[in-house]
Amino acid sequence: LRTPVTGIEPEELRRVLEAACKVAARDIKAGKVADYIPALARVPSSKLGAAIVTVDGDVILYGDAQEPFSIQSISKVFTLTMVLSAIGDSKRFWERVGREPSGSAFNSIVQLEMEHGIPRNPLINAGAIVVSDVLHGVLKSKDTVSAVVDFMRQISQSPRVSVDPVVAESEAVAGFRNASLANFLKSFRNLDHDVADVLHVYFNQCAIAMSCEELARASLYLAVEGDHPLTGSKVLSSSRTRRVNSIMLMCGHYDASGDFAFRVGLPGKSGVGGGIVAVAPGRAVIVVWSPGLNKHGNSHAGTIVLEHFARQTGWSVF
Amino acid sequence: LRTPVTGIEPEELRRVLEAACKVAARDIKAGKVADYIPALARVPSSKLGAAIVTVDGDVILYGDAQEPFSIQSISKVFTLTMVLSAIGDSKRFWERVGREPSGSAFNSIVQLEMEHGIPRNPLINAGAIVVSDVLHGVLKSKDTVSAVVDFMRQISQSPRVSVDPVVAESEAVAGFRNASLANFLKSFRNLDHDVADVLHVYFNQCAIAMSCEELARASLYLAVEGDHPLTGSKVLSSSRTRRVNSIMLMCGHYDASGDFAFRVGLPGKSGVGGGIVAVAPGRAVIVVWSPGLNKHGNSHAGTIVLEHFARQTGWSVF
Amino acid sequence: LRTPVTGIEPEELRRVLEAACKVAARDIKAGKVADYIPALARVPSSKLGAAIVTVDGDVILYGDAQEPFSIQSISKVFTLTMVLSAIGDSKRFWERVGREPSGSAFNSIVQLEMEHGIPRNPLINAGAIVVSDVLHGVLKSKDTVSAVVDFMRQISQSPRVSVDPVVAESEAVAGFRNASLANFLKSFRNLDHDVADVLHVYFNQCAIAMSCEELARASLYLAVEGDHPLTGSKVLSSSRTRRVNSIMLMCGHYDASGDFAFRVGLPGKSGVGGGIVAVAPGRAVIVVWSPGLNKHGNSHAGTIVLEHFARQTGWSVF
Amino acid sequence: LRTPVTGIEPEELRRVLEAACKVAARDIKAGKVADYIPALARVPSSKLGAAIVTVDGDVILYGDAQEPFSIQSISKVFTLTMVLSAIGDSKRFWERVGREPSGSAFNSIVQLEMEHGIPRNPLINAGAIVVSDVLHGVLKSKDTVSAVVDFMRQISQSPRVSVDPVVAESEAVAGFRNASLANFLKSFRNLDHDVADVLHVYFNQCAIAMSCEELARASLYLAVEGDHPLTGSKVLSSSRTRRVNSIMLMCGHYDASGDFAFRVGLPGKSGVGGGIVAVAPGRAVIVVWSPGLNKHGNSHAGTIVLEHFARQTGWSVF
Repeated sequence: LRTPVTGIEPEELRRVLEAACKVAARDIKAGKVADYIPALARVPSSKLGAAIVTVDGDVILYGDAQEPFSIQSISKVFTLTMVLSAIGDSKRFWERVGREPSGSAFNSIVQLEMEHGIPRNPLINAGAIVVSDVLHGVLKSKDTVSAVVDFMRQISQSPRVSVDPVVAESEAVAGFRNASLANFLKSFRNLDHDVADVLHVYFNQCAIAMSCEELARASLYLAVEGDHPLTGSKVLSSSRTRRVNSIMLMCGHYDASGDFAFRVGLPGKSGVGGGIVAVAPGRAVIVVWSPGLNKHGNSHAGTIVLEHFARQTGWSVF
Repeated sequence: LRTPVTGIEPEELRRVLEAACKVAARDIKAGKVADYIPALARVPSSKLGAAIVTVDGDVILYGDAQEPFSIQSISKVFTLTMVLSAIGDSKRFWERVGREPSGSAFNSIVQLEMEHGIPRNPLINAGAIVVSDVLHGVLKSKDTVSAVVDFMRQISQSPRVSVDPVVAESEAVAGFRNASLANFLKSFRNLDHDVADVLHVYFNQCAIAMSCEELARASLYLAVEGDHPLTGSKVLSSSRTRRVNSIMLMCGHYDASGDFAFRVGLPGKSGVGGGIVAVAPGRAVIVVWSPGLNKHGNSHAGTIVLEHFARQTGWSVF
Repeated sequence: LRTPVTGIEPEELRRVLEAACKVAARDIKAGKVADYIPALARVPSSKLGAAIVTVDGDVILYGDAQEPFSIQSISKVFTLTMVLSAIGDSKRFWERVGREPSGSAFNSIVQLEMEHGIPRNPLINAGAIVVSDVLHGVLKSKDTVSAVVDFMRQISQSPRVSVDPVVAESEAVAGFRNASLANFLKSFRNLDHDVADVLHVYFNQCAIAMSCEELARASLYLAVEGDHPLTGSKVLSSSRTRRVNSIMLMCGHYDASGDFAFRVGLPGKSGVGGGIVAVAPGRAVIVVWSPGLNKHGNSHAGTIVLEHFARQTGWSVF
Repeated sequence: LRTPVTGIEPEELRRVLEAACKVAARDIKAGKVADYIPALARVPSSKLGAAIVTVDGDVILYGDAQEPFSIQSISKVFTLTMVLSAIGDSKRFWERVGREPSGSAFNSIVQLEMEHGIPRNPLINAGAIVVSDVLHGVLKSKDTVSAVVDFMRQISQSPRVSVDPVVAESEAVAGFRNASLANFLKSFRNLDHDVADVLHVYFNQCAIAMSCEELARASLYLAVEGDHPLTGSKVLSSSRTRRVNSIMLMCGHYDASGDFAFRVGLPGKSGVGGGIVAVAPGRAVIVVWSPGLNKHGNSHAGTIVLEHFARQTGWSVF
């Protein structure tokens, strides 16, 4: 009889996940769906999905686990991965973007000013825009957006993954804050390419639609030191993978990153579409989705699911 | 034949530690000893000590591992532990101090103003002063400083642990920045006791002198979910211990916490005396000491030791 | 027949002042008496007094013009005058305190941090504490507070002027924010004397009680290039007097200095006791008192009186 | 024999101006020509011009007084005048832009964030961009830039005034910081029109080229309560003119506004082209131009001229 690497049998994992989801479902109405663009505001707040993919290859799904949603800021983890995978020496890259938590949301633009246009980390908007700029340069492909989509299709093993054009268009129309950040970075000479080109990449990567299951498959390399058991490929080196996890833990949940680390204890990244990817190194990836957000902009029900799940499994890295 | 819980034989650990220390020793002169108080400035910058205490009880020492030094901010972890151990419901406590990283050092006082006197976390000075204030209240002992010293003696199993009176006096004389913070907190009604009484506790806890070995013994509960294998006592509940580790990872190295997580990948806490405590959950505690500091105020050689050690052992939590 | 220097006959000035006070009296209840110390909170909000002293020596009083009140921050103008009068070269002084407006109240402590302990100007609390420190040094008298009181008695020609001991004691007990600032300045080595000694001077100067009439007499030198027509003495050089007026215009009303300049157009200084001193260079000093404050901490009715008065007389400096 | 309204005979004014310019010329090399756009960097740093136009109509010129230069931020005074002249009730306008000094340059973007997209005053870049947006709306003309140029031609009585197309193009190409601010304002819904349209107005108004003499004629209404003696027209109401002067005194010289008020004592506005307009209410307008800037971005020689001139004439408003 196989002893699972995760230390917990799949059936037990399923039971724990279901129990956690049921607790969260009771409080699902306390979340508030993002309304800054119409395409997001239309998603029903009652949606709740979850997927676990273990390093053994077991897949556990719950609820709306196969329904695509807008991954939004979760995309930042994957463009960062693409950049770290494509560049050799990363010294120059880490001079253009830091790896410290950003403190309060308020401080991001203050710090950007004080720190001369060097974003604090690659998971805040300013940092992710720099990542998109670097990616645009290193890929040398005609179409950076297509390259990102191809990468997501490959690591999720799902050819249907694509950009939601309505969401992408909405981002561009409403994206004055991001346009402000991009111009600010450009004024500090921390963007190599045209502001419009970089924002095109950024708005489109945020508008990629994927399901919990697809995201969990796609993220599995983060739990296996950069190897991808499902595809057999090496997505990222072991040391750089650990560093992506480290940055996720420190900076993955906006101004509530400390709270998420405190309550869940796993590296994770959330998006305003209501998705959260959490990584249990050496064990599994857990993805939850529920579009209602808490006051920090993270999925309300999703955070509850992960908190209960982590407590029951003891998978906190601490 | 016993398989060590750490996954690495003690002799191998010793070899890895020594190799790491030798690498660090070569660059030891790049650090700069803290000079804000004379008592610290006098410590020779050539000192280098390290101690590992594993959850199996193995003890590995290197260099100046048994020479006492000023633990300074490392004391914040222990007063936080004492408070979390003494209080029942922690809700009120976490309303008086947050658990988010503070961003840049600059931001601490800005955030304190913006966030109405609620320090971002218990490991920045303002937060630790609130912790000392709470401790002063919950202990109900006549002498809070003695209680802290007694606690440190007990968990380190070393009766010689004590406050260095010269350092404590120097802290009080030079502590205008901390006096400013304490009065600031008091103006927001976030100190219950007299400013002078709280600062007395704070300056004395920082002036406690301990060796690497003593600190490693004292911290072992952080690697064993709150149990203390050496004393047989339960220092802190499992969930609260994980949370202390989480806060150490997020906030334990001032404005270089992200960098330490990125490079070492272990919860840790540094002090301007040159000490660093690092926790490998389920495995061991590693303490290093070298008084020369890098530009962020963390031990220069100590950080190098831990970076090499973590890379060789693979003990990163990520 | 004499043509008044002010360009307006005293009887007309009286008529304009009364009309302005009557307009303000109608809205007097919209102000809120400062309650941060009990001694201030007890003053009836219905009080309204005003005094004009022209450079010709005419005195016009209205309402509670002869009732003493706590001058609070208005004292900053006089300690600044004492320092500028006592020192020769002012270069060193202006390196310890700036002369730029401070922007929002929020920014004062941020700027103090960013600008390495150099307060933006002598009329914000941090700057006035530095002024008190300098004064303590240059006077070489045993008792700086007595020297300030003597100065106020002399230039107001009123021997009854004195410190209200109840207010002074309250300031000391509740003055945590100022104690924080003083320790902050000390940590940047921008206080020469003991924090407690400097705060003693500062709290006592703020607690001086004077009437509108006394304050108007005391301030007359500001309208006559430093000469004091009533005492026949030279209080301050012409150029330094103009500079005090300049600083009052830029910084005299906390975060509403621009608004006061916009609406009234005269150099002025307010205090949380409800007093405002306004200077019409070459013409007169106008002092109003009404303890109810607006949201910026300036006398609500007092500001209305001065706005109407300035509009009717055309005495704006613009 | 006529007594001049200024109190000083024209020949004496000429003598004082020449003496001041000669003092400034000795130190002219200490200034540094703005180099953020090539078109400005090419102007010889040795240029020095000055013009006085008194309310009596006397014109006094010195040096390069008739050579056009880029008025840059000085244009903000005139677009503000156009808006205040065009709108009825100004309440809504002053809700979109404040009238408080901005403190340090650093703080402008912090304050913009904290104060929800309401710029502190109309003379900082963010505020001037809002003014351009309002102007674009109220003018209802097809071409706002042409309307601004026409206004400048009319009040300067000089048909040759026009936009320098090379400078305007350079502003657009290098204007990432302003594009960032405009998008930031738009994200707070404090721009009514398209970002590109508003920036077009803003970049072109800054690129208007005028001589000292033209600018002095154009500004004369500021010294005469809104009347324009040369054109016989009413440019702005008396009370709004005083308010423009008040804002110039508080905010006209970036982070050195307090210093300018302290040393010169006159409302003024500088531009990075090296021009400064100073207003002596009831007396005259003085315009100086020298392209070398001091560390605050104000004309180095120009500031010296005005300081000497103000001291000799006693025209300080204080």
